[in-house]
Amino acid sequence: MGKYVFGIDVGGTTIKMGLFDVEGQLLDKWEIETRTHNNGEDILPDISKAVTSKMEEKGIEKADVAGVGIGVPGPVNDSGIVQGCVNLGWGKVNINKDLGERVGLPVKAGNDANVAALGEMWKGGGQGYSHLVVVTLGTGVGGGVIIDGKIISGASGAGGEIGHIHVQDGEAETCGCGNHGCLEQYASATGIVRLAERKLASTKVKTKLKAGSVTAKDVWDEVKAGDLIAESIAEEFGDYLGKGLAAIAAVTNPEAFVIGGGVSKAGDVLLDYITKYYKQYVFKGSRDATFKLATLGNDAGIYGAAKLVLV
Amino acid sequence: MGKYVFGIDVGGTTIKMGLFDVEGQLLDKWEIETRTHNNGEDILPDISKAVTSKMEEKGIEKADVAGVGIGVPGPVNDSGIVQGCVNLGWGKVNINKDLGERVGLPVKAGNDANVAALGEMWKGGGQGYSHLVVVTLGTGVGGGVIIDGKIISGASGAGGEIGHIHVQDGEAETCGCGNHGCLEQYASATGIVRLAERKLASTKVKTKLKAGSVTAKDVWDEVKAGDLIAESIAEEFGDYLGKGLAAIAAVTNPEAFVIGGGVSKAGDVLLDYITKYYKQYVFKGSRDATFKLATLGNDAGIYGAAKLVLV
Repeated sequence: MGKYVFGIDVGGTTIKMGLFDVEGQLLDKWEIETRTHNNGEDILPDISKAVTSKMEEKGIEKADVAGVGIGVPGPVNDSGIVQGCVNLGWGKVNINKDLGERVGLPVKAGNDANVAALGEMWKGGGQGYSHLVVVTLGTGVGGGVIIDGKIISGASGAGGEIGHIHVQDGEAETCGCGNHGCLEQYASATGIVRLAERKLASTKVKTKLKAGSVTAKDVWDEVKAGDLIAESIAEEFGDYLGKGLAAIAAVTNPEAFVIGGGVSKAGDVLLDYITKYYKQYVFKGSRDATFKLATLGNDAGIYGAAKLVLV
Repeated sequence: MGKYVFGIDVGGTTIKMGLFDVEGQLLDKWEIETRTHNNGEDILPDISKAVTSKMEEKGIEKADVAGVGIGVPGPVNDSGIVQGCVNLGWGKVNINKDLGERVGLPVKAGNDANVAALGEMWKGGGQGYSHLVVVTLGTGVGGGVIIDGKIISGASGAGGEIGHIHVQDGEAETCGCGNHGCLEQYASATGIVRLAERKLASTKVKTKLKAGSVTAKDVWDEVKAGDLIAESIAEEFGDYLGKGLAAIAAVTNPEAFVIGGGVSKAGDVLLDYITKYYKQYVFKGSRDATFKLATLGNDAGIYGAAKLVLV
């Protein structure tokens, strides 16, 4: 095994790249553009060139590199095959094989949300735990479910799709996935806005939140300021998320939940609302799970991709 | 590795025992009494004696035995330690170590529902699948969630407690676990009776089901006979169970669900009602999971216990 490892996080507009030592020390970090034209055919060649250039720049030999880990925005099976990545323009791609042949190094690919979870376990809020769930509250609700240090990718790469646990009957609006009443419809940044606008449309209680233009950040800022309506929205959010995380716990019985994504910038107050309802819904054997905030922010993906090679 | 393996399923009244070859052929099967007096202190010695006697009877040497697998009714961690088994009278017991020293063979213990799941994967309805969920619909709802051929036992042995996924808000009755609205309250044999009695108390539609004395078997018999009220109860059952299984699929993305336990004796009609609602609630990436009936019945536990040694 080499001394170095590359961790790569492929997004729809930029590709984040990190050079690490095998202990997880980040030695260098940079970005390249994601060129999605022509069905994204340049993406893997671009990554290969960027890795090779960095090795030349640093005087690193192939024998010194344990491998290249890569997270992509779509389902990836255990062999590194994606059936399609809409955001990248890709159809079916065998990432491990294709990129591996280009770069001449072992390559291991995973789903970006799952990979970010691995990063938080390795060097972030989940350090010290090997049975954990990382929940990413951003535009959507993503996550990674880790058992004994390994991500559950599932039979066809659709493991850890925790944003699509059904938590509400009778929802009229449709989730991005086509279903109704998914966790993501209430616990993502856009979900919090949905809860807030519904609340504001149905209450006459005075609040600083402005109907029509409220953001998730506004809600949490006003929760901290003691706004009663903001607090009632946070209770609803906590109820939905607590219910969803309790369902995960009934399946995997984790030691810890790590909460990340843009919404988690609200800080510890978020955890108070989640744990209140989690404890109400969860099976007693999982009641003592620890709740932590994620700490790696946008770097979780490159850390986790590097770890993918070392698992 | 030896040629033989013992699989033992410890229940509150009897201990089922099986002698298998390592290919999974059941060579002999018998039962002994579960002596639970004095905090169940005789249970492991009794098992040890039964195994030793069988080896003498069959002329089997220790070197010929791969080990002894054992399922017990309570949470068991990966080291074979239980913190307590109410039905056996046990407090904390290190089964692997204690029974291992008595019998002089490698011992591996697991939770009985999880172990039965492993049995169905190995030689029952789940043959050919390595990512599957075995659901046991009996007095309660138990199960085993298997990923890559291994049971998820969880951080503290409470993995696969799928009967306690929350599927109904506002339930007034309390589940055995202390929560309200658990899957087990609607999809177990007693849960089906609950649904039936509620339906019968609120309808004037003619039905052959008798309020006050209906059983789960009555409901399924009448479903097959075309009774409209029985069918509406089956729809409710399917809705709850489909919702719960979809939540599991969002976490682990299995290839297959195997439905067992007393309720599964109703046969394929059961699967029709479950899959209808499963497909409605599940994330699209898991929509094509296969649904099968369990086939090993009460022997699933001894098969799975044997397999525990061979994993």
